[in-house]
Amino acid sequence: MKILMNGGVTSATGFMAATAVAAIKYENRDDLALVVSEKICNGAAMFTQNQVAAAPVLVDKAVMVENKGRLRAVLINAGNANACTGYIGQENARQTQEQAAAALHCDRDQILVMSTGVIGVQLPMDKMEAGIAAAVPCLSSANGNAAAQAIMTTDTVPKESAVSLQIGDETIRIGGMAKGVGMIHPNMATMLSLITTDADIVPELLEWYLRTAVSRSFNRISIDGDSSTNDTVLLLANGASGVTVGAGDARFQEGLTAVCTTLAHKIVRDGEGATKFVEIHVSGTTDDEPAHTIANSIATSPLVKTAFAGSDANWGRIMMAAGRAGVLFDQHQTALWIGGESADELCLVADGTPTAYAEADAAAIFTQSDFKIHLIIGAGNGRSTVWTSDLTHEYVSINADYRS
Amino acid sequence: MKILMNGGVTSATGFMAATAVAAIKYENRDDLALVVSEKICNGAAMFTQNQVAAAPVLVDKAVMVENKGRLRAVLINAGNANACTGYIGQENARQTQEQAAAALHCDRDQILVMSTGVIGVQLPMDKMEAGIAAAVPCLSSANGNAAAQAIMTTDTVPKESAVSLQIGDETIRIGGMAKGVGMIHPNMATMLSLITTDADIVPELLEWYLRTAVSRSFNRISIDGDSSTNDTVLLLANGASGVTVGAGDARFQEGLTAVCTTLAHKIVRDGEGATKFVEIHVSGTTDDEPAHTIANSIATSPLVKTAFAGSDANWGRIMMAAGRAGVLFDQHQTALWIGGESADELCLVADGTPTAYAEADAAAIFTQSDFKIHLIIGAGNGRSTVWTSDLTHEYVSINADYRS
Repeated sequence: MKILMNGGVTSATGFMAATAVAAIKYENRDDLALVVSEKICNGAAMFTQNQVAAAPVLVDKAVMVENKGRLRAVLINAGNANACTGYIGQENARQTQEQAAAALHCDRDQILVMSTGVIGVQLPMDKMEAGIAAAVPCLSSANGNAAAQAIMTTDTVPKESAVSLQIGDETIRIGGMAKGVGMIHPNMATMLSLITTDADIVPELLEWYLRTAVSRSFNRISIDGDSSTNDTVLLLANGASGVTVGAGDARFQEGLTAVCTTLAHKIVRDGEGATKFVEIHVSGTTDDEPAHTIANSIATSPLVKTAFAGSDANWGRIMMAAGRAGVLFDQHQTALWIGGESADELCLVADGTPTAYAEADAAAIFTQSDFKIHLIIGAGNGRSTVWTSDLTHEYVSINADYRS
Repeated sequence: MKILMNGGVTSATGFMAATAVAAIKYENRDDLALVVSEKICNGAAMFTQNQVAAAPVLVDKAVMVENKGRLRAVLINAGNANACTGYIGQENARQTQEQAAAALHCDRDQILVMSTGVIGVQLPMDKMEAGIAAAVPCLSSANGNAAAQAIMTTDTVPKESAVSLQIGDETIRIGGMAKGVGMIHPNMATMLSLITTDADIVPELLEWYLRTAVSRSFNRISIDGDSSTNDTVLLLANGASGVTVGAGDARFQEGLTAVCTTLAHKIVRDGEGATKFVEIHVSGTTDDEPAHTIANSIATSPLVKTAFAGSDANWGRIMMAAGRAGVLFDQHQTALWIGGESADELCLVADGTPTAYAEADAAAIFTQSDFKIHLIIGAGNGRSTVWTSDLTHEYVSINADYRS
């Protein structure tokens, strides 16, 4: 597997992107992106489980039921989520499909739509139409980065990732982009992400590969525990490489998971107000599931996350957050280790009791921008890893002001 | 029911309190409180469900199994939680029971203990012993407020409440104190609270009354979604009024619930960094349970709570938080109302779609320090109310620094 520098959503053969200033919310930047495949694609999708799903999510779900074997393009806008907009919002989303289909000379139901931004405001349909018309003539495989920039909201950096894989004598490419820095929580797709590949894969297998990759990447990150109304991950495969990928191909799975994990980590690192990137590893449970529940409880605890922000090795809060997860365990069998990039691992708790560690050693780890926490809960084989950020003043500033 | 001004944990006849500067963590203030009944008491208790329960919780659970019909006193210290301290911590808690029992000339197992403060540090036993010795000679029914002050940690105000009730020709009193401004979440006792009454009630009924009162008060508040290792609510009944309360006495239940609700509201108002007191009411579900789940999801959402902090009527986040609660509902049947103390109720969402409300009217409500949110989810009879605070810069400042 080779990581493609500067790679993204148009790295796979046959994918093009275009952007436009639709001025939906932002005036002087691209806020509309169109990603188009030259050939008809197979697709797979994962959507938010939020009951207040946005109109584009509802529309895409219908598209995927009928047309997962004949997709052509994805239209994305930033600045307006088209969520909590009722039946009018759904009708508007369908109309943008029609606008894009007309410009691309394909069927309405071959277009997927994604929206991100303010909730509860109807889409400005004239601006969407003008944006689409402006974008289509600019379609190019050189515009992957421009697309990643156009879909940003409170993101501070565009998020891209791509790899190339050797399969026999042939090469395939997988690339993608993502956006999202708030409302991030591991309960489904967790933000907008569009991934493309030039491999040829039937929709059923594509969904299986995507589900596995997402469960190991996007579903393992948390910034604030809030799952959005619009969370969507799409994977398109256009077969332009001429290489067919069958069931259980470990190379493809690894490549796709790598792209998703890179994007997921970029989301956490760009988390609203985040200054730390923390890996939380829990092991020793009977199965993976309870380990994941405990890791999530730690990753979403405001008291743990403010301690991260303060570079305070306040491990009592980590134990508290583990204990409140709803998983039964014996606190007298727990151990807690921490480790940084430039420090040995340090054991803070053994048999549920503090060790005689030096506070300065713990502080040296917690002041780093990247560190790891490993909580051992017992003697079982279950384990899980979650990535999270800290809870800072900047998070409060961003969210006490921004109307998202 | 009459609310007793300046009433607290010693308002009920036959209860005394004393405090001392034990200098466990704080140097120049009382940090140890002893509440003693002249007569033997019946008791009821509710404890944290956190798996990492603190030593005093484990010790008190054992006491309640054997001695709920012959309790005498409660010893409380601030500055050290005696949590994550292993078997040594439990032995230390038992030793403080013995120290108090020796000073009060009663059995060790008639003493309950509560601790709050830093996690993972062993109790300074010499300081505890000296504190107990200093406190005992000062026992007086005039020291209720001093006790409420001594148990504070990051609390900015002491929290007390008391009522008197007429039962036939007789009067009984119920009074209590509480502490806690962080690690507050409606999953059990949610902080330290000690409530006393001079009614005569058997332990089994006492527990029933307490469970009902707590489910309507302490279990309905959330500051940061974190449940502590030490959460405990104790209720002692010494019978000193000579009035026996039997089963299903609505007056007693109402009085006890009023004391608990007042204390719970005081905790939310004193929430770490809190500037708002928000009542979240959810109705229209099939049962009360899903309404409570949705209300909790709203009350614990960082994005909702930062919007409160910014006085931003950003109702899209409220809908998002409701939708992610894991309860199935039809977003097209939802309605959202908001109301303040000095404004008419305002409908923001009807049939899942924004109404034509004026932004200025919504902002006028959200800028108030007390306001209400009412989310209607359907046509069912289920409903629930939760009280919460906002998430402010001050919360981050307190928790990025304070080692709790």
